[in-house]
Order: sequence, then structure tokens, then C-alpha cells
Amino acid sequence: MAAPLPQRPRVVIVGCGFGGLEATRALARTDVDITLIDRTNHHLFQPLLYQVATAGLAAPAISAPIRHILRRQMQRGQLTVLLGDVTGIDAQRREVQLDDGACIRYDHLIVAAGATHSYFGRDEWARHAPGLKTLADAFELRNRVLKAFERAERYPEQREHWLTFAVIGAGPTGVEMAGTMAEIAHHTLHDEFRHIDSRQARVVLIEGADRVLGAFPPDLSRRAQEQLEKLGVEVRTGCRVTHIDAQGVTAQMQGQDAPYVLPARTVVWAAGVAASPLGQALQASTGVALDRAGRVVVEPDLSLAGHPEIQVIGDLAAAKSHPKRGEPTPVPGVSPGAKQMGRHAAANLVRRLRGEATRPFRYIDYGSLATIGRKAAVAQVDVPLIGNLRFSGYFAWVFWLFVHIYFLIGFRNRLMVLMDWGWAYWTFQRHARVVVEPPRHRTEEAP
Amino acid sequence: MAAPLPQRPRVVIVGCGFGGLEATRALARTDVDITLIDRTNHHLFQPLLYQVATAGLAAPAISAPIRHILRRQMQRGQLTVLLGDVTGIDAQRREVQLDDGACIRYDHLIVAAGATHSYFGRDEWARHAPGLKTLADAFELRNRVLKAFERAERYPEQREHWLTFAVIGAGPTGVEMAGTMAEIAHHTLHDEFRHIDSRQARVVLIEGADRVLGAFPPDLSRRAQEQLEKLGVEVRTGCRVTHIDAQGVTAQMQGQDAPYVLPARTVVWAAGVAASPLGQALQASTGVALDRAGRVVVEPDLSLAGHPEIQVIGDLAAAKSHPKRGEPTPVPGVSPGAKQMGRHAAANLVRRLRGEATRPFRYIDYGSLATIGRKAAVAQVDVPLIGNLRFSGYFAWVFWLFVHIYFLIGFRNRLMVLMDWGWAYWTFQRHARVVVEPPRHRTEEAP
Repeated sequence: MAAPLPQRPRVVIVGCGFGGLEATRALARTDVDITLIDRTNHHLFQPLLYQVATAGLAAPAISAPIRHILRRQMQRGQLTVLLGDVTGIDAQRREVQLDDGACIRYDHLIVAAGATHSYFGRDEWARHAPGLKTLADAFELRNRVLKAFERAERYPEQREHWLTFAVIGAGPTGVEMAGTMAEIAHHTLHDEFRHIDSRQARVVLIEGADRVLGAFPPDLSRRAQEQLEKLGVEVRTGCRVTHIDAQGVTAQMQGQDAPYVLPARTVVWAAGVAASPLGQALQASTGVALDRAGRVVVEPDLSLAGHPEIQVIGDLAAAKSHPKRGEPTPVPGVSPGAKQMGRHAAANLVRRLRGEATRPFRYIDYGSLATIGRKAAVAQVDVPLIGNLRFSGYFAWVFWLFVHIYFLIGFRNRLMVLMDWGWAYWTFQRHARVVVEPPRHRTEEAP
Repeated sequence: MAAPLPQRPRVVIVGCGFGGLEATRALARTDVDITLIDRTNHHLFQPLLYQVATAGLAAPAISAPIRHILRRQMQRGQLTVLLGDVTGIDAQRREVQLDDGACIRYDHLIVAAGATHSYFGRDEWARHAPGLKTLADAFELRNRVLKAFERAERYPEQREHWLTFAVIGAGPTGVEMAGTMAEIAHHTLHDEFRHIDSRQARVVLIEGADRVLGAFPPDLSRRAQEQLEKLGVEVRTGCRVTHIDAQGVTAQMQGQDAPYVLPARTVVWAAGVAASPLGQALQASTGVALDRAGRVVVEPDLSLAGHPEIQVIGDLAAAKSHPKRGEPTPVPGVSPGAKQMGRHAAANLVRRLRGEATRPFRYIDYGSLATIGRKAAVAQVDVPLIGNLRFSGYFAWVFWLFVHIYFLIGFRNRLMVLMDWGWAYWTFQRHARVVVEPPRHRTEEAP
């Protein structure tokens, strides 16, 4: 009688964003059985999501079907991809619970469930000021922005209200949204209405801190603000939002007594990020600490204290970088961070399988890059031997463009996005100006 | 004191499908003031909607913003485009009522509001068997089809149920949907699952009449059925649906006593078409007759009896073609018919402005064309001097392809669709495989 084949270690990876996808790929040559679970059927190239929201790109241009990009690992019999929602984690039984009641056992778990919007406890603001994390969010924002111009055309007496747009939070997403919305108003739509002049639209970027792009050096923040203003964006820094409703935004300007009232009918929330609720599930099951944003405090090797078989990466992790010299520093919530954590978690998993010691995570910072709008961006890049380069304007914008095209998933998407951008650049047009109302019948759910 | 300028005749056009768009364009050089009202912000190239539903094209590839394609007429001060829902027509006061209570006065009215699905009084079937008329419908179907394969992978015990697809109605849309779904199952997805073989999926096309594509000559119906079966579609003609629910479809096969039961989890409705409810609004206001499908019975010149200032065109009109010789024949519900009616209505309007007599509508039939799937189509074309040509298979498919590319709105869309199809042809891939769940927060409506 033949002995049963020894079972391969079961690895469960939750989430197929930058971190989860990279971890899955990094395990391609390891003799493990991987189950990758995601709520959607596609990997989303989130840095370009604002382009879908502002009608510059179609959704398929920045989304790649997970099954398709990982089909070789699947064909090798190493990987199962599941469309599902993880609702709980039982660290004692080493099980992940799905929304349909199914439980999936693991020997090693990598949680890369990402982040969602946070309204700092003011969840009632959500319906007036949607955020931008998923394709559904992007469609919602696209509908609101395009319909605001339609409403202004139809209701001349409410013109000012409909033509005032507020973007709250001047991080990279807020800056991109504000810059692109100004471009839409001033160029794309300017000759397509009869009762309004779309160029009279106001786009106001509201930031609580005293400068935009707070993660960048102050001189680049200044350059970014100059470029935003040149594009027609009004920038209000030192301005804390106190209320949002259908009438607009109320805020408190630094050093002023009277509240700042902005009658904006369309508000975009780009201010707060909270970790996925799976952080709380992990805390409930393992007692691990969470930080203020709900992110899981991980060990230097990205595992949980007392649970070396669980690793948390990406935006869900309050991770630190452990440089060769000097103090540990927080890892910024950017895609290179998530990807590096994904690779590192996979490498540590392999080390554990071999009985070796795991290694602390070290984040390699290649620089930061933020686009603002047409021909406008800021960049700081660490070049080995040369040092830290900072630049802005047209050159930074071209640099941003090529970096993003390069990192886009899939040859075809790269080509399509390049074509779309070429088209948009020369014609000032945005081809995805399609307002689709949600379907009347909801998709039927699984039993 | 200068005399007030004589007011230009006010033309209101309801709907910007093929008929409404063509009528608007045909009036470009006429001294009238046009208001074009549509429920969406885009003109939809409906013949390719099934490609969006089957993940072959992104929505923006077949949708052109109405304001953009008509911007020159707008700039000339001749045209106002309104995003709005027409809820009523008052023929006595010559007013069109909008959903927000606004009334728009007209001197001449062209109603091109199109058609919607009809479930023959069984509206409860709608949630189990969505139809395909709008982009929202296409997204819903895309979600259902792609998710069915995901469910089959996740629930092996329900595999058969999830992998059975029914298409009801074997007109052009039903045939296209069935053929393309078979292609997805047999080619696109075949190596991307681990627990199922997508090639085991059944696609069943159910038709009440005794052949597919009933509007085509019987020999082409036979060729179409052969090609469908070669693509892996099971064709059930002479099969009348009696019930649809979450368990599947029940039907009555001609000459059989026992009902035909198909346990299909995903059902596509391509059987019944009903005219827009504006037909009833016109009847209420003018007493005009409606046919069984709710279409408005029009005079030979497309106007309403007793209301020469109102014209009804496209799928909403029960129009007849008045050939030079012979009896009048019904105009088929295809896009060339709607476009020709649009041009004809505009020409008759100009004649009335000049005090000339209007002319009866004559439909010029250039032939019919239906695609079935990869390298499969049927065509009959009337070629002057040569006569009626019928062909099928690869050549008909290439012909179909170029005809559709040619008629697509906008140079850019043509190029994009051509690229998408080239890509799909060589790789068997469909790039728009993106499941997007409806947004959590609904778009806020106008006050």
C-alpha cells in the first residue's frame, strides 16, 4: 500500500491588491498550495483610479482579471482563486471564514486586505462626499461630476451651486482629482453647453494641514500648489472640515473666527483612510494591537506577535522599515511599499518552511511622485550615487506618465492607456464620459 | 424702436438613439431652435451592446457623449441638449413634460423614445432574466455571466446549475449573446479555473418559433443554427417559455407533453420588445392608436393623425414603408430603419416650414446582417443590378465586422473597437472582464 502523499503547506492569501498579488507571484516556485481570496474578480491599478473617476480611462484599462494574470500558477496546480468576502479569521483553528459560511484552513496566512475610507466617525458625510477606492466609487464620482454640469445647464438658478466642486484632502488622490476636474471644466467641456460656461466652475481643494502633499518636501508642496492654481484650482490649506451636507461644506480656517462655507453640490472625499475591518477580526482572534487608523501592529518580520504563521502586509499593516543603520521608520502607504511587503512576506514564509530565521522588513524608497494635471506633476527620486533629485512641471509629468505606464499590469493595458492619453492630450477630450445609472435589478446573490 | 426678431420655430426631439440623432443632424442647416432631450448623456451604439455584456468591449467604446458629437450645432446656437426624462406630452398645449416638473414648448415634436423589454405580462421574470437595452443592462449581464463561473468554482455541488446558461429568444441579440457566451466558456476561460472545466458549460438558446433569426430567409436561419451548434450552443426551437425563476426555465416543446425543464442559473431575456411608455402618453393626449406592442400607429409621413406637428420615429413607431409600387410593408425594427425615419421626419418638417406637402416614408432595405460568434455570421445584401446576395460563415463575419466599424460613431471609437477586436481575435481574450458591483451610495438626484 502506497503511503499517502505528504500534503503541501496550505497558504491562504486574503486580498489581491499590490501586496497580495506580489506575494502570490513570489511564491510561484515554492511547493505550497495557495488559495487567493478577493472580493472582486480583478486586480485594480489603484494609482490610476482617479482617471476612471474623471472619465479619462475606461474601467477595463486599469483592471486585470485575477484569474487571467495568474493563470500559469493555476495551470501548474499550485493556486486556487476564489471570489469571496472574508468575514472572520480564527487564528486558533487556523481558519479563514467566508461570507457564505465556508471555512478555509491554512498553515500560513497572509492578510493584505487594504484600506477603506474613514470619515473620522462622521459616516453621515459619506453620501454627500464619496471617496475613491474601488471601481464602483470611481463610477459614482464620474456620474456626479458629469451630471453636475448637466444640472447646471438645466437649472440656471442653481448654477453656482452645481458648478462648485470641493475636494477634501490634498494628498495625492485629492490633488489629482482637483487638477483633473479643473481640466474638465476649463478644457474638455468648455464649448459644449449653451446656458452655462463650464469654465466658470470652481474647484476648491480643502486641506487641514498647512500645505498640499504633506508627504513631500515643503518646496515640492509649494510647486504643487502653484501648478494647481495655474490649472484653476482654488487651494485652501489650514482649513478643517466641520460639516458636510447636500448644501456643501463648512470648514474652520486657521486663525479665523467665522466658519468658511462653500456651497458645493459635488464633494469628493480624499481625506481619511481606515484599515480594513479584518484588522479588528485579527485583534479579536489574536489579541494583536491596532493603531489609531485600525492598522495591525506587526513584528519587524511582518508577522503577528505569537503567530508567526500570520503575516499582515500593505495598507492593513502598521509596519516599520528596519534600515541597516538608524531607527525603524514607518512604511508609507504607497504601492511600492505594499509590493515590497508582499515579496518580503513570501520570502519569510519560504524561510520558515526551510526552518530558517525570518528577516525584518526593510523598505527601499525610490522616491515619490504625484501628478497634478495636464503637464503638471512633482517628483523626488533617489538616484544611487547622485542623490535626491527633485523636479516639477512638464518633465515631472512625463516622468510620472512613463513610470505609471511601465507598472501597469499587462502589455495590452499599457498600450491602451498610452493611446488613451495620447488622444486626450492632443484633443483635450476624455473618452469615457459615460454616465451609467446603477442597474434596476440587483445581481442575484449566491444561495 | 426695433421690431422684435421673429422667433424661430421650436423643435423638440425626444431621444437620442439612431432616429433622434439622425433627425437632429438632418436639421443642422435649418433655421429652427432644437431642444434634444435624452435620459442619458450618451448616444449608444446598440448593435454592439452585446459585446459590452460579454466583456469584449468597454462601455466608452460604444458610447459617445451627445454634447460632444453635436457640439458644432450647439456652438451655432441652434441646439440645446438636456439630460432629462420625459414623463408626459400635452398635444393641446404643445408641451413636453419633464420629470422635474419643467415643461418645454414646441412647435414641432419628434418623438424617438425607442423600446424597452417586454415580458409579455410576466414582469416577475425580469429579476431572473434581465434583458439588454442599456449600458446598465449590459453591466448587469456581464456581472451575472462572469460571476456564474466564479460560483461554479466555489460551489462544486451546484456546478451544473451555475454552468447552465439560457438565452431566450433567437433574434439577432439572442443569437449574438448565445454565440459569444459559448466562446467565453470554450475559449476565454477554459484554462483559468481549478475545480471546474469551463468548457462543460451549456449554453441553450430557446426560441418559440420553429427557426432562429426569423426575420431572415429560411436557408440563412439554417446556416445560423449550424454555426451556433458548431460554437457549442444547444438550439431549442419550437420551445415556448412558460416559467422562469431562480431555479431556471420551464418551457413547452412543440409536440411534446412533458414540460422542458432547464436548470439554468443565468438567463438572458432577448425575446420581447415593447415600445416606450411615451406611446401611451401620446395616445392619452391625441387619441392615436397603438399596436399590440404599444407602438404608435403613424400616418404615411410619420406624423400623427390630426397632429401633423408631431412625428414618431424609430422603435416607438408602427410605421409602414410606402414603396413606389405595391402594398405598404412594415418597417423592421433595425437601426437603418430608425436612421432613415429620422432623416425623413426632418425632411418633412422642413417641407411643412416651407408650406409644402409632406411625403410618405419609404424604407430602403440594404439587407440584413447578424453575427453569431467567432468567424460566424449570416448576411443577405441587396446589391443594385446584381440582386439579392446571401452568404454566411467567415466571409459574412468579416463583412459584418467592417459594416459595424464603419457605422460606429466617431473616429476614435472605430479605432479602439478595431484594436479590441484584433486583440480578442488573436488572443481569445476579452479585456473587459471586470465585475463592478453597484455603488453603495446612490447618486444624489436633483432637487
